[in-house]
Amino acid sequence: MKIVIVGGVAGGASAAARARRLDETAEIVVLERGHHPSFANCGLPYYVGGKIESRKKLLVAPVEMLRNRHRLDVRVRSQVTKIDRDRKQVHVSNLETGDQYTESFDKLIIATGASPFRPPIPGIDSSKVLELRDLTDADRMHAIATSGVKRAVIVGAGFIGMEVAENLVLRGIDVTVVELADQILPPWDREMIQPIEKHLGEQGVKVLLGESAIGFQESAGDGLTIQLKSGQSLDADFAVVSIGVRPESQLAVDADIECGPGGGIIVNDSMQTSDPNIYAVGDVTQVSCFVSKTPVQIPLAGPANRQGRIAADHIFGRSSTYRGTQGTAVVGVFGMTAAMTGLSEKLLQRHDMPYEKIYVHPSDHAGYYPGAQGLTLKLLFDPIDGVILGAQCVGTNGVDKRIDVIAMAIQASMTVYDLEEAELCYAPQYGHAKDPINMAGFVASGVLRGDQPVLHVDDIQSKEDSERFLLDVRSEGEFSDGHIPDATNIPLESLREHLAELPSDQPIAAYCKVGQRGYVATRILRQNGFDAANVSGGYTSWMRRSLDSE
Amino acid sequence: MKIVIVGGVAGGASAAARARRLDETAEIVVLERGHHPSFANCGLPYYVGGKIESRKKLLVAPVEMLRNRHRLDVRVRSQVTKIDRDRKQVHVSNLETGDQYTESFDKLIIATGASPFRPPIPGIDSSKVLELRDLTDADRMHAIATSGVKRAVIVGAGFIGMEVAENLVLRGIDVTVVELADQILPPWDREMIQPIEKHLGEQGVKVLLGESAIGFQESAGDGLTIQLKSGQSLDADFAVVSIGVRPESQLAVDADIECGPGGGIIVNDSMQTSDPNIYAVGDVTQVSCFVSKTPVQIPLAGPANRQGRIAADHIFGRSSTYRGTQGTAVVGVFGMTAAMTGLSEKLLQRHDMPYEKIYVHPSDHAGYYPGAQGLTLKLLFDPIDGVILGAQCVGTNGVDKRIDVIAMAIQASMTVYDLEEAELCYAPQYGHAKDPINMAGFVASGVLRGDQPVLHVDDIQSKEDSERFLLDVRSEGEFSDGHIPDATNIPLESLREHLAELPSDQPIAAYCKVGQRGYVATRILRQNGFDAANVSGGYTSWMRRSLDSE
Repeated sequence: MKIVIVGGVAGGASAAARARRLDETAEIVVLERGHHPSFANCGLPYYVGGKIESRKKLLVAPVEMLRNRHRLDVRVRSQVTKIDRDRKQVHVSNLETGDQYTESFDKLIIATGASPFRPPIPGIDSSKVLELRDLTDADRMHAIATSGVKRAVIVGAGFIGMEVAENLVLRGIDVTVVELADQILPPWDREMIQPIEKHLGEQGVKVLLGESAIGFQESAGDGLTIQLKSGQSLDADFAVVSIGVRPESQLAVDADIECGPGGGIIVNDSMQTSDPNIYAVGDVTQVSCFVSKTPVQIPLAGPANRQGRIAADHIFGRSSTYRGTQGTAVVGVFGMTAAMTGLSEKLLQRHDMPYEKIYVHPSDHAGYYPGAQGLTLKLLFDPIDGVILGAQCVGTNGVDKRIDVIAMAIQASMTVYDLEEAELCYAPQYGHAKDPINMAGFVASGVLRGDQPVLHVDDIQSKEDSERFLLDVRSEGEFSDGHIPDATNIPLESLREHLAELPSDQPIAAYCKVGQRGYVATRILRQNGFDAANVSGGYTSWMRRSLDSE
Repeated sequence: MKIVIVGGVAGGASAAARARRLDETAEIVVLERGHHPSFANCGLPYYVGGKIESRKKLLVAPVEMLRNRHRLDVRVRSQVTKIDRDRKQVHVSNLETGDQYTESFDKLIIATGASPFRPPIPGIDSSKVLELRDLTDADRMHAIATSGVKRAVIVGAGFIGMEVAENLVLRGIDVTVVELADQILPPWDREMIQPIEKHLGEQGVKVLLGESAIGFQESAGDGLTIQLKSGQSLDADFAVVSIGVRPESQLAVDADIECGPGGGIIVNDSMQTSDPNIYAVGDVTQVSCFVSKTPVQIPLAGPANRQGRIAADHIFGRSSTYRGTQGTAVVGVFGMTAAMTGLSEKLLQRHDMPYEKIYVHPSDHAGYYPGAQGLTLKLLFDPIDGVILGAQCVGTNGVDKRIDVIAMAIQASMTVYDLEEAELCYAPQYGHAKDPINMAGFVASGVLRGDQPVLHVDDIQSKEDSERFLLDVRSEGEFSDGHIPDATNIPLESLREHLAELPSDQPIAAYCKVGQRGYVATRILRQNGFDAANVSGGYTSWMRRSLDSE
């Protein structure tokens, strides 16, 4: 058996090592275009910023190790230029020597990844317009970031954009981020990501939303001018373009291997392409979304590694299959964390999938133990059976933990009722006797059981909904510090004495700071015959949403 | 409907609040023996040590709040002395005034918790022998710990014992811990908890295992002498006894309500006792273990709260049921964390349940990102179908996260194969593209698939197993720094060239530092016809186990 693998990072490296473990006798050739196989690509921004000091640390599996330990025929600087399916061979170009040769295969695995999208903007090919995909890119950015430059513009506020922003600030560079969407970190829902946006501002990063670069111009001195769609222009020492990636599937396209509309190679659940002797794994593929069952392109390291294993398994007759990608993701931004799993609200809307949602704003651990910090957890679920469809969490501590727990719940097709019953670690420095996971489960289950109908801040803001009586059940002090316009304040503690003052012929929206007192108020009101609902996430959610209109 | 609740902490308070949310008209009486309902009992050790500075913070739900917000008739310092089932009333003694009265009920909820076990040791009633259950205890301990004393002896190395040890050290007190078992923190398996034991020693805490107190004697001065079983005696300023708790079920026993052998009140899955009008929740009950389905007593705050909700639900005709307790627990000890969920290995043995186990020793996040710290994860699973039976994790960071994830997996009856496919948060500061959860899944699945038979350090140590050829596949440098006695060193990288030197008629145990190279070696050897197995957890596991014999 001779296996040729095109691309030696994440998915390709995993496939190669797995194949060797399954078969000592197989001939395994890894053709990597770059200088290094299996480097730590997720670490590149931190190398630029100096958090990772040693470049060597990024080389997690050097060529020698792959050769000696796994007896892989690893060839770096080796670019595959063509797949000849009829002859079952690939054409290879040695980028060092210029030599061209062919390499035959029994099975081929395409693991070419995805490359940063570079739109055809005038001047984008300037040496001052950088991208960050591989070590060579990182070396360039590291050099410029440590050369005493003062200003950088980052085009694109996705994962890489945010991580680069943080790391350039660490180098003392003044950073402006330009993002076409109306929010940073587009995979998250907009209202969830606003605390991160605010936090960026507090760290001195300027964020321009709904804005894009239309031109880059090197100035007479050492600078670069970035022209924006709005007419505005920005002066900087360099720019970084990070507006997403595209599957690097041209080899497959040229070989008439089927690709999806987004350019990803179409694979079955054994990672086979339309040619059963050719597999594809990682960011170059189009995968199935585990929740919506629709085709998606989600470039993630974990799934790439799993897919590599599965391709190798299938080649050696094993039945392991890929269950689809959930889209579990996390990003750190100046000490804050945003994490998510499953579908976002906007994706649910795009797929026309029915859903309900709730928000909770608990602290990461017991409030009476020092260091407790607020976090916000959004849960999206099926409005009929309560199956969890997605979750997002933003805060300082304990964010990845909650999303990992819900990621498992989604994998097991669990419901919001299961979250009520989750039995998680509790000591005051780690969580709550009623963990945020349980809280989210309680609230969501209460909605489905009809105990606690919820309203959302968007409902409150909408014109059609102006007929609703808005009841603030917080204390007088909290109310006077700020409240939703037109709300009436009756603190929860005296609500029962003031029921007569409430309209019996009008729906009531009750709210408090985060939703807990609003829930109790809703229970009191409904049991007394009022048509009441609780504003999910309360004033905290409202404040966040209302930033939109500023 | 009139509901009387005996005990106003955790389970009792949850039941009361839930009952109110379900029924505005119910009469709800909460009879609490102590001065405060719903105090933060898990915070008490940290109040003693000063991490929680303000005593007020421990009063999470003051009486006024429960009265005003939930309209609960909360009566503190009110001890129930008798349950009269025939008349459906309880006898109450007002501990302030001495008044005695009866209170009728339609439904009664017993939430009296568990009290520290005080064995009949001579001198145990000395005012210098403390325990830590409620605020009054905490006040006493706080007073003595801040009075300039120098030495304390803690009898019992369970959760409370460990937390008190840490907090007394924070007060500058010299601490000796005496524990009857051969390990601290008995719920964990011994080899897992050894890093914590070592860490305690590094913090200056002396731990005496296999030892117990048989007498306390106040000395002439201000001191206390603790006589130990071994004949040794310890001098201290005070002692703390924390050798476990007993369900405070005497009220139920006296009323002929059925209790289990451990003293816990027997309940059905709606938390009803043998008298259908009487419920019991929290630490006073005997619950069903979710994994073994056997009766257990596990005093935990989360389950107590859930049970309180369920009892209230059932009283109002709702069908929610308790699924059993998993035993998810966490404890922090001087910055290290031990967490577990499901059954331990020793419990599996006690229940005669078949199991397999594996160990992994990864870092909490990517090694190339600063701050990565090692952790150890032990996974216990069904040897046939791979259903997860339990897990334990010990380390500095990310420990509670991994156990929470596995707690969800156990709740969903997931298998080790599901852990392989878990899609968890990954960025280098949070985890790995192959998270420790995935790694554990890979290793365990490899065992079940026969790809990677494992041996355990106990097997290596056993006499019957001395016929095994012990192969160390680490580097020469690692080998010379220390290895398992009688092992032969052939580094993985050159293993294929040295196969001829290995015995073909003898089973081979391969090991490396943590198990990964041992796995690759096992694959190479098995494919070349050798009867090889990998030592799970490698030399790291061996070093930990071999501490036993020191």
